[in-house]
Amino acid sequence: MIENAVSQRFFQFEILYQSTRSRARVGRIHTPHGVIETPNFVAVGTNGSLKAIHNYDHSALNVQLMFCNTYHLMVQPGTTLIKEAGGLHRFINRQMPIITDSGGFQVFSLAYGQVAKELKGQGGKKHPSSVVKVSEEGVIFRSYRDGNKILLSPESSVLAQKDLGSDIIIPLDELLPFHVDEAKLKASFARTHRWECRSLHEHLKNRQNQAMFAVIHGGTDLGLRQKSCNILSKEAFDGYAIGGSLGCDHQQLISTIAGTTPHLPPENPVHLLGIGDVKSIDQCIPYGIDTFDSSYPTKAARHGMILTRNGPLKLIRQIHAREFMPLEDDCSCQTCSHYTRSFLHHLFKANEPSAASLATIHNVHFMMRKMESIRTQILCGLI
Amino acid sequence: MIENAVSQRFFQFEILYQSTRSRARVGRIHTPHGVIETPNFVAVGTNGSLKAIHNYDHSALNVQLMFCNTYHLMVQPGTTLIKEAGGLHRFINRQMPIITDSGGFQVFSLAYGQVAKELKGQGGKKHPSSVVKVSEEGVIFRSYRDGNKILLSPESSVLAQKDLGSDIIIPLDELLPFHVDEAKLKASFARTHRWECRSLHEHLKNRQNQAMFAVIHGGTDLGLRQKSCNILSKEAFDGYAIGGSLGCDHQQLISTIAGTTPHLPPENPVHLLGIGDVKSIDQCIPYGIDTFDSSYPTKAARHGMILTRNGPLKLIRQIHAREFMPLEDDCSCQTCSHYTRSFLHHLFKANEPSAASLATIHNVHFMMRKMESIRTQILCGLI
Repeated sequence: MIENAVSQRFFQFEILYQSTRSRARVGRIHTPHGVIETPNFVAVGTNGSLKAIHNYDHSALNVQLMFCNTYHLMVQPGTTLIKEAGGLHRFINRQMPIITDSGGFQVFSLAYGQVAKELKGQGGKKHPSSVVKVSEEGVIFRSYRDGNKILLSPESSVLAQKDLGSDIIIPLDELLPFHVDEAKLKASFARTHRWECRSLHEHLKNRQNQAMFAVIHGGTDLGLRQKSCNILSKEAFDGYAIGGSLGCDHQQLISTIAGTTPHLPPENPVHLLGIGDVKSIDQCIPYGIDTFDSSYPTKAARHGMILTRNGPLKLIRQIHAREFMPLEDDCSCQTCSHYTRSFLHHLFKANEPSAASLATIHNVHFMMRKMESIRTQILCGLI
Repeated sequence: MIENAVSQRFFQFEILYQSTRSRARVGRIHTPHGVIETPNFVAVGTNGSLKAIHNYDHSALNVQLMFCNTYHLMVQPGTTLIKEAGGLHRFINRQMPIITDSGGFQVFSLAYGQVAKELKGQGGKKHPSSVVKVSEEGVIFRSYRDGNKILLSPESSVLAQKDLGSDIIIPLDELLPFHVDEAKLKASFARTHRWECRSLHEHLKNRQNQAMFAVIHGGTDLGLRQKSCNILSKEAFDGYAIGGSLGCDHQQLISTIAGTTPHLPPENPVHLLGIGDVKSIDQCIPYGIDTFDSSYPTKAARHGMILTRNGPLKLIRQIHAREFMPLEDDCSCQTCSHYTRSFLHHLFKANEPSAASLATIHNVHFMMRKMESIRTQILCGLI
């Protein structure tokens, strides 16, 4: 009880409105670095910086939660250095909340190639040069920078995230390729839950005002998803992140989400890992997803793909060369306030680095506006 | 007389203080888009954008004059499109003054490889695939984008710069390789002055509130430099730009400048083309150079070379990994106000695109501060 009371002070999920039509809700996650209004989009800044924009732009863009990758930060510049700098917020000079992952996702991607694709069932083969040993203790991998062997265990992942001082941390889990036999799947499922509990145990030794979200596994097997929810909701996690394979198309994604969230405690926030396209967000909101992270909007921007209410716009196309209008008419982002499609088209054609940053500012702003509109729709009883 | 009175309204060089120790002076160039305090540094935004930063950053950085390259803008997006957009200022959304060159420098670089190196006598051979025909009429070159043949003549260069609507325009000149025989040099010298006079003639047909700076030629031959000054100062140019080969080292640069500026009318502004390193600026100021353009500070920034009062700092070096201090202690730029050397070192190591833009902001700010300090030193009688 005392533990919970302490927890309440630095981390609290406040539900402001619960839809009567669906599991969608509007809420506020309170963290030591401020409030995250939910549902919200979590922008990904792998190395401690949203690609192509500055951390001091985040406040203008109102990016309330930023996702950083522990694996990348472990390898460069190292979590010890970040701790020396006074923690991740201070190192990157961000005042608002940060969530970090366990590092597992990236480590396993060394083994399976592109994990994101793998999780969608489009996966390739095991990368021949990857050196990954998975045991009960943890994962051994080689640093891509210097080839040194590094052990990532539930404990070392949590300790790394303690050095970072992120507001929300994630326990170590194991990711499997999509096409794997039943026996391996079951063994991994059991181990991943043991790892998560070890992570939580390590975390609770020294909470340090951080919250920990469990990762729900089970792939597209709804029975396993339910089992994962049952196991993890018995532990003292502050929230839940839906991870692992979510199937190979929207249909499977939605049925997996639909079969998972009803088994989670309604009073905790639910995050969906690595999904952030507009279609998926729209489809997942009614099932009670509170936050979504994805590098899609920033990556798309760097390739000249502009998010608009009428769908993505490929700015490099000649059709935009003479459009002397903003990317979106009613958009108030810095890019739309200052420049035309024509100028931005030119910057992309001329390979100017400012093209990527101006497009990124728009796309991130678009996502923030999208989520604001979703919150309004829920409050108006439309979702 | 009426012509001059009109000219005074849209372009005026006001000398606020003339040093008694040297030719250095503090002044103000008045243009239709505002004032340029001199001496000043002119940042280069080849394609209409300072590389890696946004045009709306310019006002914060107080970049009073921006240099854009007509050749690049002719090829992409085309000066007709820019005219349609309402001119270059409107197209790129810059409120402050812009200077454009004639396009000649870039066209000749197709013939001689890197003109900048060539002009310093470090040049390589004629580029085998370049297609350049130089005649009395002008230069024929092939667009690097579509291979189309384009004629750049004194008239077409001026008309292109009319489309752009830049505040200061430059007449077409011919650039020769450094190592060239006497006869060729003399023929080119004569032709380049005929081209400049044709450019001026075309310009005066429709001034359009633009000023034109003549380009002083003559290489390192001080007799020719003097002759160039004599020819061009008889014409109705609004200012002078020192161009052509300036020798292969600082010594030759300085003696060329020292042997040129005394032959120019003291009441007109003098620009030095393509030179903007701190050492050259310091050495040229006493000879009465008012403005300097160079892509060095922005290019250096993208390579992690940070300008400081104690000389350039190579940020990627391991020694900076744990320096939890700004790039420069007393610098008020956005980068130094927000981030440490350690974080910026990390961004460069992690290949984050924001590294280049943050370094660029600092380097441009450094140049602006450097020029401000030079103006103060002149006013205090120190130069």
